[in-house]
Amino acid sequence: MSLTILGVDPGSRITGFGVVRITNGKIEHINHGVILLDADMDFAMRMTELGSAFREVMEKYRPHQVVIEKIFLGKNADSAFKLGHARGVVMYEAGLGKATVAEYATRSVKKGITGTGAASKEDVQAVLKAMLNIKVINRIDASDALAMACYHAFEMKKNAVIQKAVSI
Amino acid sequence: MSLTILGVDPGSRITGFGVVRITNGKIEHINHGVILLDADMDFAMRMTELGSAFREVMEKYRPHQVVIEKIFLGKNADSAFKLGHARGVVMYEAGLGKATVAEYATRSVKKGITGTGAASKEDVQAVLKAMLNIKVINRIDASDALAMACYHAFEMKKNAVIQKAVSI
Repeated sequence: MSLTILGVDPGSRITGFGVVRITNGKIEHINHGVILLDADMDFAMRMTELGSAFREVMEKYRPHQVVIEKIFLGKNADSAFKLGHARGVVMYEAGLGKATVAEYATRSVKKGITGTGAASKEDVQAVLKAMLNIKVINRIDASDALAMACYHAFEMKKNAVIQKAVSI
Repeated sequence: MSLTILGVDPGSRITGFGVVRITNGKIEHINHGVILLDADMDFAMRMTELGSAFREVMEKYRPHQVVIEKIFLGKNADSAFKLGHARGVVMYEAGLGKATVAEYATRSVKKGITGTGAASKEDVQAVLKAMLNIKVINRIDASDALAMACYHAFEMKKNAVIQKAVSI
């Protein structure tokens, strides 16, 4: 039995995604990429483009679980507001695709992947490439999304081990 | 020829909607209501519930235009962030339903309906009831949405008159 996890880094202009699969405790990289939206396009229209493109990703990989970055609101309410729109669309489509949605803080993901919550995005990418045996990750947004999917996969494995230990 | 306008007041717990139709320059009330979401439900799941319920509204009334309140961000970034999610879902479904999306500031809508931008929600509701010949509007969210649809209908009529005058 395998579990497919889709990490998503939503944005009103760029949305990164990364897909991993856990089979018999082994984490495998399936694919990653970005959904790029035309910044000149009307915002409402962009949400429809995003939703439709994200639906294609959902239908292609049929993830059991979708992972999104947990947000701690900073001072820029305007960008948080815009980001909220993109997250809403992603959550909606995730639910339509019958996936559960998990959220993790960036710091936890960085720590889980590299060992330190203060790691740079480039550090995270380097570890991911080595770990998943990927030659190139073109976009940092895709690598962030992939990091979330991987971190969630670790958590799943950890919980499975704990459950096994408890059942013994 | 008639034009159907759907006003929406999105929210992560309550989303109001109101539908009007313009036929030969006459504005007619079609329906109004609210989409209520279970506040105890997981937020991501609520977005799927909202999107699915809003899709039903879109499919039932098939509006040519959807009108949403334009937001000026206040100090509460957290609620703006949550609201953003609900707006994103509504915009996405509006686009899927081939409707154009318009946004108006609350103040403009209040002024257009009652004559003053400082009118209370109750004032707006009273004028709407008289104007559209509606006996009861149960929820203030539905009445806000209906006010937006009506205001947009006024704007449409005004523009049509201007275009007619220009073409003479």
